[in-house]
Amino acid sequence: METDDRLGEVLGALDAGLPAALDRLIDFVRIPSVSTDPAYAADVRRAAEWLRGELAALGFEAALRETAGHPVVLARSAPGGGRSLLFYGHYDVQPVDPVELWDHDPFDARVEDRAAGAVIRGRGASDDKGQLMTFVEACRAWKAVHGSVPAGLTLLFEGEEECGSPSLAPFLAAHADELRASLALICDTGMYADGRPAITTQLRGLMGEEIVVRAADRDLHSGNFGGLAANPIQVLVNALAGIKDDSGRVTLPGFYDGVDELTNQLRADWDDLGFDAAEYLSRVGLSQPIGERGRTGLEMVWNRPTFEINGIAGGYAGDGFKTVLPAEARAKVSCRLVGTQDPEAIRAALQAHVRAHVPADCTVEFHPHGSAPASRMDITDPAFAAARAALTEEWGREAAYIGAGGSIPVGGDFQRILGMDVMLIGFGRDDDRIHSPNEKYNVESFAKGARSWARVLAAIR
Amino acid sequence: METDDRLGEVLGALDAGLPAALDRLIDFVRIPSVSTDPAYAADVRRAAEWLRGELAALGFEAALRETAGHPVVLARSAPGGGRSLLFYGHYDVQPVDPVELWDHDPFDARVEDRAAGAVIRGRGASDDKGQLMTFVEACRAWKAVHGSVPAGLTLLFEGEEECGSPSLAPFLAAHADELRASLALICDTGMYADGRPAITTQLRGLMGEEIVVRAADRDLHSGNFGGLAANPIQVLVNALAGIKDDSGRVTLPGFYDGVDELTNQLRADWDDLGFDAAEYLSRVGLSQPIGERGRTGLEMVWNRPTFEINGIAGGYAGDGFKTVLPAEARAKVSCRLVGTQDPEAIRAALQAHVRAHVPADCTVEFHPHGSAPASRMDITDPAFAAARAALTEEWGREAAYIGAGGSIPVGGDFQRILGMDVMLIGFGRDDDRIHSPNEKYNVESFAKGARSWARVLAAIR
Repeated sequence: METDDRLGEVLGALDAGLPAALDRLIDFVRIPSVSTDPAYAADVRRAAEWLRGELAALGFEAALRETAGHPVVLARSAPGGGRSLLFYGHYDVQPVDPVELWDHDPFDARVEDRAAGAVIRGRGASDDKGQLMTFVEACRAWKAVHGSVPAGLTLLFEGEEECGSPSLAPFLAAHADELRASLALICDTGMYADGRPAITTQLRGLMGEEIVVRAADRDLHSGNFGGLAANPIQVLVNALAGIKDDSGRVTLPGFYDGVDELTNQLRADWDDLGFDAAEYLSRVGLSQPIGERGRTGLEMVWNRPTFEINGIAGGYAGDGFKTVLPAEARAKVSCRLVGTQDPEAIRAALQAHVRAHVPADCTVEFHPHGSAPASRMDITDPAFAAARAALTEEWGREAAYIGAGGSIPVGGDFQRILGMDVMLIGFGRDDDRIHSPNEKYNVESFAKGARSWARVLAAIR
Repeated sequence: METDDRLGEVLGALDAGLPAALDRLIDFVRIPSVSTDPAYAADVRRAAEWLRGELAALGFEAALRETAGHPVVLARSAPGGGRSLLFYGHYDVQPVDPVELWDHDPFDARVEDRAAGAVIRGRGASDDKGQLMTFVEACRAWKAVHGSVPAGLTLLFEGEEECGSPSLAPFLAAHADELRASLALICDTGMYADGRPAITTQLRGLMGEEIVVRAADRDLHSGNFGGLAANPIQVLVNALAGIKDDSGRVTLPGFYDGVDELTNQLRADWDDLGFDAAEYLSRVGLSQPIGERGRTGLEMVWNRPTFEINGIAGGYAGDGFKTVLPAEARAKVSCRLVGTQDPEAIRAALQAHVRAHVPADCTVEFHPHGSAPASRMDITDPAFAAARAALTEEWGREAAYIGAGGSIPVGGDFQRILGMDVMLIGFGRDDDRIHSPNEKYNVESFAKGARSWARVLAAIR
């Protein structure tokens, strides 16, 4: 069959080109594009330029598009024979702290041979540079072998995903006509388990908030003021302690508005995955779920909302001891959201709760850090069945429909702003240590990921 | 009268020598002897050497005595005509964070003219370099004018006061026979109010503890693990929130064992001081006492125990946002103690309370940071009345017997280990900003402080 032959040649080209593709990925990971830290702004732009250069070299019409923050890289193929598709990835990465826990410089990326298979190690190797490059390499192979990709492709890469994507929704809204396609493809998710490919059909949302409590106009000596003056750390701690009750439920009024129970079908599908929460936790040195009582492990991470304290700081926490009542204390907190929970209503409930704990002599300041509702995909589009079959073919195992605990706000943005369906396919592994020291991406994920996209591009008609 | 003439000459020499004395103090403050931070170890030793040099130049037999930590500077005069006295001060200083809040380099000490009178500004200008130099300058003047100080003097300067004095008690115990005198003098306290001299007759004790809670063996992505895995910040926050109740009382079992009510006499004396808590707090931007209900302001800072969180850190608290469940969180907490409270019993109660909040998948580690019971002085020694009269004479206002909220563990150590009475006289002001940015010492405190000690040395017989 002609299609099979055409695809076979592309897969062969990908296999032959793997060493060069790995070199390209390593160059890319070596650019420290930490979007949340202003000190790296020039590096973030350098990563965008690198990507633009790669896409232009493939014959795409590629350009940087400025935003209020980091630029968007936008590229477009000549109209192909297939459906119009919009591919999304992000070229920015998480900070590297605590950097002393890395085995080597997080940006000195390299391929390392491991008993379980080779990996590319470095910040962003998996999230999302390695992932997005699987798609770019698939396009490269199609172009090299057949002169074109089998679809009308627009590629959109943002540089602010790790700091809440503040510029993306405005960018999509401003360029909706230019960007709209028949389906969006996103490569920023994982396999279900080693070797089992997956399409993610629901994502949790996110609401992030920074809380700053201030008291005296300077740090105070606890001998001179302790017992008399307000301590902002204590105020903050008191406010944060009551937000979850003993059963793991969040106590903010209205928090569970819009939280749906699983459908019976989805519950059966997920049960079939045989998720073992204790085994999953054991990979990070833990042993037991600490979430809401009466929920399965997969519900806790895919279908239940959370409240977490992501960072806290106040007073002197360095070596030694300083008997101080500090002038201020701060915490960064976030909620993962599901169903139709309203991020801004929850932000308001959080602020009201904290304010109720702030005594007369203290002030509180709030700084919002991103918000996105949860999203669910419409899997009745035949592209889903086609992609599922292509993934199953590549990996030799039935591809699964799964949920994700993380937030990829762009999924919801594409649905809401562009009115497009979204298909999330990715090749990350649970042990990729994304957002943690020693992040890696399996060479197998990279190689078979590119082959998977080559197949999916052929399958979606 | 001969004594008055002899003293008058000494006071005249102090007045004439003030500019040179200020230059010496500035040299001393410029040595960044931050004892709690290992990075400054060489500077701490340099400060000890500087002090040894000054004392040797006065004809004292002066030497550095090694300890397990920073050295002790010990000096001894030829036996004088008066009582044997042991003077104590500390040459180490607090850290300078947050350094960006200083008007200039904390160690670029200088004299600054202010509307309210000139000050010496720099870390340690008041606590305790300026204070201890008042005594050294008084000795210098006595020696210069009369060839000897009117007492058998031993001077002991430690370099670990700001990190809990771990080596001092062992040093006192090991050298008790050499150090014992008829009375100890300590210059590390303040005036009661601007211009009103004071002798401090009771000090709060201290118990410091660092708490480290750990969960997963790495930082976790809150999308992949939030809702399922333990969050050490939340565990720590939950443990710390319950330690004080809504009325400001500490809830640890047995915490108030050994806490006495004020005697009627002391309560009357303190009421007579006319302390205005609201005015005191207004100097640091606050307005109302937040301590135990039903206690006066002076009771809260001088005669009631406290629990304070001095520092807390966990997760990502820098610019931007990182949706992480951290591997660990830590807090430094301390209690100010009164009466006969037992620091180690309270440490044990704190540890038990925290442990009860640590779930199965978390561990907790405790690091002790200093402990000292409270102490009260025996003011029936006639030296107290003599010193009080001398201070009243110098300042033109009745000297007060006061308490102190801070901890000077050496006071209790001298009582317990050396069996000596202790007299605490100091010239610090409430607005000296000790332990805070822009610490200063009034030139008046320095000049009249030295004159005060010259008088006290003459008065104690």
